[in-house]
Amino acid sequence: MINRLAIIGVGLIGGSLARALRAGGHVREIVGHGRGLGNLQAAVELGVIDRAATSPADAARGAEMVVLAVPLGGAAEILAALAPVLEAGMVVTDVGSVKGAVVAAARAALGARFPSFVPGHPIAGSEQSGVGASTPDLFSRKRVILTPEPETEAAAVARVRAMWVAAGAEVLTMPAAEHDRILAASSHLPQLIAYALMDMLVRMDDHRAVFDCSGDGLRDMTRIAASDPVMWRDICLANRDALLAVLRQYHSDLGELADAVEKGDGEWLLDTFTRAKRARDSFNKKF
Amino acid sequence: MINRLAIIGVGLIGGSLARALRAGGHVREIVGHGRGLGNLQAAVELGVIDRAATSPADAARGAEMVVLAVPLGGAAEILAALAPVLEAGMVVTDVGSVKGAVVAAARAALGARFPSFVPGHPIAGSEQSGVGASTPDLFSRKRVILTPEPETEAAAVARVRAMWVAAGAEVLTMPAAEHDRILAASSHLPQLIAYALMDMLVRMDDHRAVFDCSGDGLRDMTRIAASDPVMWRDICLANRDALLAVLRQYHSDLGELADAVEKGDGEWLLDTFTRAKRARDSFNKKF
Repeated sequence: MINRLAIIGVGLIGGSLARALRAGGHVREIVGHGRGLGNLQAAVELGVIDRAATSPADAARGAEMVVLAVPLGGAAEILAALAPVLEAGMVVTDVGSVKGAVVAAARAALGARFPSFVPGHPIAGSEQSGVGASTPDLFSRKRVILTPEPETEAAAVARVRAMWVAAGAEVLTMPAAEHDRILAASSHLPQLIAYALMDMLVRMDDHRAVFDCSGDGLRDMTRIAASDPVMWRDICLANRDALLAVLRQYHSDLGELADAVEKGDGEWLLDTFTRAKRARDSFNKKF
Repeated sequence: MINRLAIIGVGLIGGSLARALRAGGHVREIVGHGRGLGNLQAAVELGVIDRAATSPADAARGAEMVVLAVPLGGAAEILAALAPVLEAGMVVTDVGSVKGAVVAAARAALGARFPSFVPGHPIAGSEQSGVGASTPDLFSRKRVILTPEPETEAAAVARVRAMWVAAGAEVLTMPAAEHDRILAASSHLPQLIAYALMDMLVRMDDHRAVFDCSGDGLRDMTRIAASDPVMWRDICLANRDALLAVLRQYHSDLGELADAVEKGDGEWLLDTFTRAKRARDSFNKKF
């Protein structure tokens, strides 16, 4: 049971966490803060948070657990604002999609309080944003990755883990660098592929006909291209090196594929497609 | 009402068309042929076809309407086998994803009977194959594109159009070259992107962790990578020029994107992602 939970950034992720913990009776009071006043008011009206605070520090004061759920670009500033009000026994965690950059920002901002910061990343979401899109079951059977540093307090990790388990998630831990390398491939690269495809198609002269003559494949492939551009710009900047490695590899692979199409190399194409299908079929068994 | 319908290739598309016409009472008898004996037997047992024919010509003999629903690579050979049995009043159509190549093959194979061939393409399907995956509502509210040539008989086009309308689809017509250019962008390019992504990920040393740490985004993006590799190899070979144009463009766009990530050009990234999101949001209104 969390006596007071502070959520900085009451959007899809922050709002869904609040709803999940409230629905399960795992929290007594939820204080929220965010930059969008309309969204914050909606969060109060929807009962997602009990009250709105005027600043991150105001929200965090007296809270047992502070959850940072803002786009990565805003994390450093908020961590700096939180530092003066952190007290013994308070735990801070985040939900950012890149962990190395957040760890560095937290280390710089929190100083002696850094061991009570638990870097975290729930692998859940949707292309929608804002508290209106939040749901209590967003994390149900989803994975949350925590990336504690050597000095991170074990008790703090345990409390963050318990919070996510209470929200319905399965929690695993790994080093931040490993997280960032894996997520670059499993999440960040697919997102860029979808954005780039949608942007290319809409720049075509006959893009209306292209969209009219599309099927479920294009629809499902580009669903995530509706995601928040600010959040994804921040992820690209924060995970530059790991993302660049997989993006350059994919770019090179596509070049080879284009060469095979140009040469009419049916054997190469069939081999590649067969390997991809086999991988997707076994991946599919997970769902 | 079609008295006798012949379906060459009783898979997902051919089987679903048979089921849709049967369910609506638009056909008296359905004869099927296909190379996979097990699939053909299943089609009889499921009641999708009334009887199995031993050859394409045998299936077509006495049929009012012959539907060719095989991968593109098999079309020329079957059209040549059909030519001798085509009689006045019989209509032949196909469901291939590339039209220029099929039109050329039909023109060569059918000779004087070419005007009774109506090139067609239902924009419907799934990543599954075979008659077991067929459903009577696969074409419900989906588009079918017909690409008649100047010499195609208007009456033949009308009958094929009526058949697809009876199956629940909306029918439009356009020149074959336009179809192939548009579908290269709306369907063939997305398919190659999905195959290439899946193939790249599974070749990574830590691909198990990548798949374990993936979410709905990767799942939905790569769904179509489970599609039939032979069908897609044939599409790549048959629509080489149009496909290559969009594939090279996308490859170049991705290279620019990688450069922007490398330079940390947040403004460029935000502009591109915002344009893509806006396009996807308006595209989304279609669904």
